[in-house]
Amino acid sequence: MTSEEIKTEVLTMGAQARNAAYELAKLTSEQKSAILLAMADGLVGSEAEILAANALDIAEAEKNGLTAAMIDRLLLTSERIAGIAQGIREVAALHDPVGEVIKEWSRPNGIHIEKRRTPIGVIGIIFESRPNVTADAAVLCFKTGNATILRGGKEAIHSNRAIAQALQEGGAGAGLPDHSVQLIPFTERESVQHMAEMDQYLDLIIPRGGAGLIETVVSLARMPVIKHYDGICHTYVDREADFDMAESIAINAKTHKPSVCNTMETLLIDRSVAAEFAPKVATAMLEKGVELRGDEAFVELVGADRVKPATEADWTTEYLDLILSVKVVDGLDGAINHINHYGSHHSDCIVTGDPAAAERFLNEIDSATVFWNASTRFSDGGEFGFGAEIGISTDKLHARGPMGLEELTSYKYRITGAGQVRG
Amino acid sequence: MTSEEIKTEVLTMGAQARNAAYELAKLTSEQKSAILLAMADGLVGSEAEILAANALDIAEAEKNGLTAAMIDRLLLTSERIAGIAQGIREVAALHDPVGEVIKEWSRPNGIHIEKRRTPIGVIGIIFESRPNVTADAAVLCFKTGNATILRGGKEAIHSNRAIAQALQEGGAGAGLPDHSVQLIPFTERESVQHMAEMDQYLDLIIPRGGAGLIETVVSLARMPVIKHYDGICHTYVDREADFDMAESIAINAKTHKPSVCNTMETLLIDRSVAAEFAPKVATAMLEKGVELRGDEAFVELVGADRVKPATEADWTTEYLDLILSVKVVDGLDGAINHINHYGSHHSDCIVTGDPAAAERFLNEIDSATVFWNASTRFSDGGEFGFGAEIGISTDKLHARGPMGLEELTSYKYRITGAGQVRG
Repeated sequence: MTSEEIKTEVLTMGAQARNAAYELAKLTSEQKSAILLAMADGLVGSEAEILAANALDIAEAEKNGLTAAMIDRLLLTSERIAGIAQGIREVAALHDPVGEVIKEWSRPNGIHIEKRRTPIGVIGIIFESRPNVTADAAVLCFKTGNATILRGGKEAIHSNRAIAQALQEGGAGAGLPDHSVQLIPFTERESVQHMAEMDQYLDLIIPRGGAGLIETVVSLARMPVIKHYDGICHTYVDREADFDMAESIAINAKTHKPSVCNTMETLLIDRSVAAEFAPKVATAMLEKGVELRGDEAFVELVGADRVKPATEADWTTEYLDLILSVKVVDGLDGAINHINHYGSHHSDCIVTGDPAAAERFLNEIDSATVFWNASTRFSDGGEFGFGAEIGISTDKLHARGPMGLEELTSYKYRITGAGQVRG
Repeated sequence: MTSEEIKTEVLTMGAQARNAAYELAKLTSEQKSAILLAMADGLVGSEAEILAANALDIAEAEKNGLTAAMIDRLLLTSERIAGIAQGIREVAALHDPVGEVIKEWSRPNGIHIEKRRTPIGVIGIIFESRPNVTADAAVLCFKTGNATILRGGKEAIHSNRAIAQALQEGGAGAGLPDHSVQLIPFTERESVQHMAEMDQYLDLIIPRGGAGLIETVVSLARMPVIKHYDGICHTYVDREADFDMAESIAINAKTHKPSVCNTMETLLIDRSVAAEFAPKVATAMLEKGVELRGDEAFVELVGADRVKPATEADWTTEYLDLILSVKVVDGLDGAINHINHYGSHHSDCIVTGDPAAAERFLNEIDSATVFWNASTRFSDGGEFGFGAEIGISTDKLHARGPMGLEELTSYKYRITGAGQVRG
């Protein structure tokens, strides 16, 4: 395809999505649920086509020497397709936030104002290799009445096309408006740029992938971007902490699932209790196979044979692995300063029995989710009870922290009068 | 100043603002109110300095041949300064949304989740010639615990500097943290670019000015931008309208204050009642001095001597003047299609006695504020009862429609546990 053809096709998809969004805004919650169930059936019914398409991606991945982990992320099986379909059925059953009255009031002149949830409109999703994102993202956006334009990585292009087609065909029979779910069917990189520039058609872009992808989208985008950057999450053990609780929380936050963004990367210990707590937590971490990297004070307390010295880079590194940096800080102020300076404003915890210290921590830490005596691993849409999650926003505008269905909505003001004019 | 010096200074201001934001987050509502009152006093106390600075800007404006209207926008007087100070005192008395619990719930595992309003952090305001924006914007952002970096137009640079200094000095005596309110003290254009790129320090930019300014900021900015674009507002007169009410609403929406964004620019009339309503409303508009530009059907009904033919450009023009475009449309569908296609998604009204038609209009029109039987002139933070308004957002993310104090806040999740870990 020529550059001109690519641009024309992306813009055409944008215009079609905008029209689809107007049709989607008319659907009732019941209609949307019926369409979602039909999409799930469509996915299962197209299993053979999806698996055949996926085999092409897997063959290409093997030819290109991708790692086993990367190939596993690409791989679809009968069970995984059934799992995606089951996920869609669960989304169908969730409460639809669109149409909810957020607040309403009357003015002295008699006009009545309702602030009511609406779809956002058209959402662009730019993602990397996992083909299940095609379904997951499209379905959450559709549930909330939004049209989507999906742009996946080239490693999964055959699988993505097959999944998108199955969703479209399955949904169409139940009344899915044309062009509600569109996948950019080619893989040239410049399609990302065209998406990022067409703010007449896209109300929002959500990049789902690594920092490089997010960075590219942020630097190009003219419309809002909701970012899911790294989680450099901290646990601070205060002088008033229960040490058994602190150890249990720290172990859970570090070792329960090291590869995810709400995992602790840095442990901070109040200097006044470090002599007692540092050796205790070090032993527990080492037993769990965690590599420790400590500041000078921690190394001294625990022993240079058990801890590596931390470098400045350790305080800003998301290891996503069984590695933990540990720093001894000067009380609550030291902890707050460290976290606000080095953290990624994602999820941070204080362990303490002192309510005043907890209150200061919860108030002054500038992070999406702040914890008092609970593991940062609870920073998650499912754990919040949202039923579904499109990611964890590290932004402060529109959506912060775990993003569920509500965060995929906008609102409008509906004003009812009896002929009032402004005097 | 060299380019390097400009960049260094803007980045330094950014870092200072970020630190100030952490201090601001600690202030209570009472402390902020006391500081606001001190700022108002500071402004009045510095009247002589502000008027002297303003005289320099006015002299420069006259030398450069600015129009009388532009000079009037720049001009400060003793009364205007008193008015700005009074506005600050009114903001001090408003309810502070920071700290409000938006919602809270407990999970089966016993953790308690609170979604609580917080300041956004650091807000950049880029504005054009009106020096009063310096105070208005800074004060609303401060009230909600945000640090600001202000960048005004060069026409008002002396006035802006004097106002910013008066606010800083007035506030400082009452505990305003250093660098909470900063004005970029020079006028080189590249400072806008540096602001737009420093997303490590600025959480949000609000450009206040014309489409050219907004466009520049949108194309450069890496952080969220809340835009206040044009208002191409419509009134649709349905077949079931009360014609007297429709005329009254249309006259108010067009003539009450033609220069503002919530003024009607296009009137749509249902074809089935156009023969009756078109001549009536035309006469009323002409009596008010409104120039009419109609489609073929409207010209035919009203007479070519009274209406100019509208061109395609008329449907997308924000006249901000006593000019009105009028189109005869095929019922509700015709009106909805026209408004969603040509409008700016700002404020649109249906006049009808038919609740079903109203419901479809309110639901299907994709605009920030939709009206049933009331003038679009009510699309305004003051009329909504917000007490203060920083603008009317034409965006759909974070803030849509009139933006009051709540829209200058973010939120965080505060989670309280008793040692819970994820299993």
